[in-house]
Amino acid sequence: MAETHEGQPLLIVGSVAFDSVETPTGRADMALGGSASYASIAASYFAKPQVVGVVGEDFHAHHMARMRDHGVDVRGIECMPGKTFHWRGRYHEDLNNRDTLETALNVFQHFNPSIPDAYRDTRYVMLGNIDPTLQLSVLDQTRGATLVGMDTMNFWIDTARDPLLEVLKRVDLLFINDEEAMQLAEEWTVLGAAGAIRRMGPKYVVIKRGEYGSVLFGPDLTLFVPAVLLTSVVDPTGAGDTFAGGFMGFLSRGGTLTRENFAQALAWGTVMASFTVEAFSVEGICNLQRPAIEQRRQQLLDMVRY
Amino acid sequence: MAETHEGQPLLIVGSVAFDSVETPTGRADMALGGSASYASIAASYFAKPQVVGVVGEDFHAHHMARMRDHGVDVRGIECMPGKTFHWRGRYHEDLNNRDTLETALNVFQHFNPSIPDAYRDTRYVMLGNIDPTLQLSVLDQTRGATLVGMDTMNFWIDTARDPLLEVLKRVDLLFINDEEAMQLAEEWTVLGAAGAIRRMGPKYVVIKRGEYGSVLFGPDLTLFVPAVLLTSVVDPTGAGDTFAGGFMGFLSRGGTLTRENFAQALAWGTVMASFTVEAFSVEGICNLQRPAIEQRRQQLLDMVRY
Repeated sequence: MAETHEGQPLLIVGSVAFDSVETPTGRADMALGGSASYASIAASYFAKPQVVGVVGEDFHAHHMARMRDHGVDVRGIECMPGKTFHWRGRYHEDLNNRDTLETALNVFQHFNPSIPDAYRDTRYVMLGNIDPTLQLSVLDQTRGATLVGMDTMNFWIDTARDPLLEVLKRVDLLFINDEEAMQLAEEWTVLGAAGAIRRMGPKYVVIKRGEYGSVLFGPDLTLFVPAVLLTSVVDPTGAGDTFAGGFMGFLSRGGTLTRENFAQALAWGTVMASFTVEAFSVEGICNLQRPAIEQRRQQLLDMVRY
Repeated sequence: MAETHEGQPLLIVGSVAFDSVETPTGRADMALGGSASYASIAASYFAKPQVVGVVGEDFHAHHMARMRDHGVDVRGIECMPGKTFHWRGRYHEDLNNRDTLETALNVFQHFNPSIPDAYRDTRYVMLGNIDPTLQLSVLDQTRGATLVGMDTMNFWIDTARDPLLEVLKRVDLLFINDEEAMQLAEEWTVLGAAGAIRRMGPKYVVIKRGEYGSVLFGPDLTLFVPAVLLTSVVDPTGAGDTFAGGFMGFLSRGGTLTRENFAQALAWGTVMASFTVEAFSVEGICNLQRPAIEQRRQQLLDMVRY
């Protein structure tokens, strides 16, 4: 049993998947992946995640145990006839680019998130990177959330811009990478993109810049946290989901949305993501001990403590 | 007359050039450029730069005045028969890539830096991005410098690796961008590259990551400073030279090489570079007023003050 928090609940809606990943140095086959898996395990170090997702009949008890062992509430994961969502991809030599070799949506194709009544009042909500129409459906089922964060990607910006703009009007915080931010905002700078996106709805935007760190923009607020410098990166898959999970997990412990709390959330998200990329699948963030996490956070903050 | 420092001397050896630059939004023709021009004007806000370089007969008094007006000591700039070094380039839409359309070395082809006797005891030395054999020649002419910084680029890593390794053994600090650092070190991560480069000689390495900031590595020392977020970038030419000039200019004011001084040097280099990219040629860093510089530094530090 990992060291987990009996913390405040954080509702996470997203994909639970099997990933088959090839990198220049190795490979993983049919390993646990998906935005909700990464986000919930990362969040479990700070909060009590409640996951809503869907899996197929090939999703076995030991897969579910990975999450349950971290105190993740998996009652909202529906099991449907058929196979679990499967993504297969191959990373290039520099790990900054990848090719998708196969996307088998399987049971995810018919996913229509139904939020269990027990989760509908959860105050902190993370909408993982899924179809914006499903994100809207989740929002319709929740009641009075304090803070709703969402993630998205270029695919939805290209193919579902209208529903995406609807979701943006109804969330508090968007996680997005720098290229996608500029694509969404039709702006050429991160600063310009952040301003344009905030005018679309979310009061806060976190722009992720991969190995370069991340920036949070809010009212009279710009915060930057660098990434942890690592000697070896094994597999970048799930880094963004882990970041969002750690970030939202920390904030869901309550407290006000101060500069200091946001800075801490950024740092924790960054630290958790640094563990994810050091191993395939969710291995890097499973069973982490508190001192290891704290040490890496210290290392991160030292870089910007002048 | 710009607001300048009657500070400590900083010897800068590099190119003085005319640049013709096209960007998606504009162009400049035969405008003042070159590593020594950018570095010396940037350094002039902190120190008394002494420039060693070469120009042709087409380099007129008003070009020299741009530097002299900033208190730059230009007695080491030799004027030779022929034309000044001319670079012509065009930036791509995103400003992160550029094509060189023409490189006319002209008088620079025969440049063999001769350090005036009055400069040979200067304690702070910046070797701009020139042929490593010339950088070695400069080192042979200096006497007991306290801190020698150097810049280089992929061209020298590809074509003059052996002399470059010789220079590295004899300098204290290398400025290099992230891709070139990995190329030089034959390592895949910034952390790995920094370690390998430090084993080649320089005690300190500053890895520049463009619009993402920069990291300094030294003994038991890792410092990160983000870049200034700008709403508009006009022309990135000279950003790295400006950064090095501001950084070395600040350090040449003396004081020990503490964590705090390095952090300040990184911040000043970053701030000066942010002004350079907002205009063509050296326009962005000419005649800056102290409050404008200070305000931007504050903005930068606020981003990482949690």
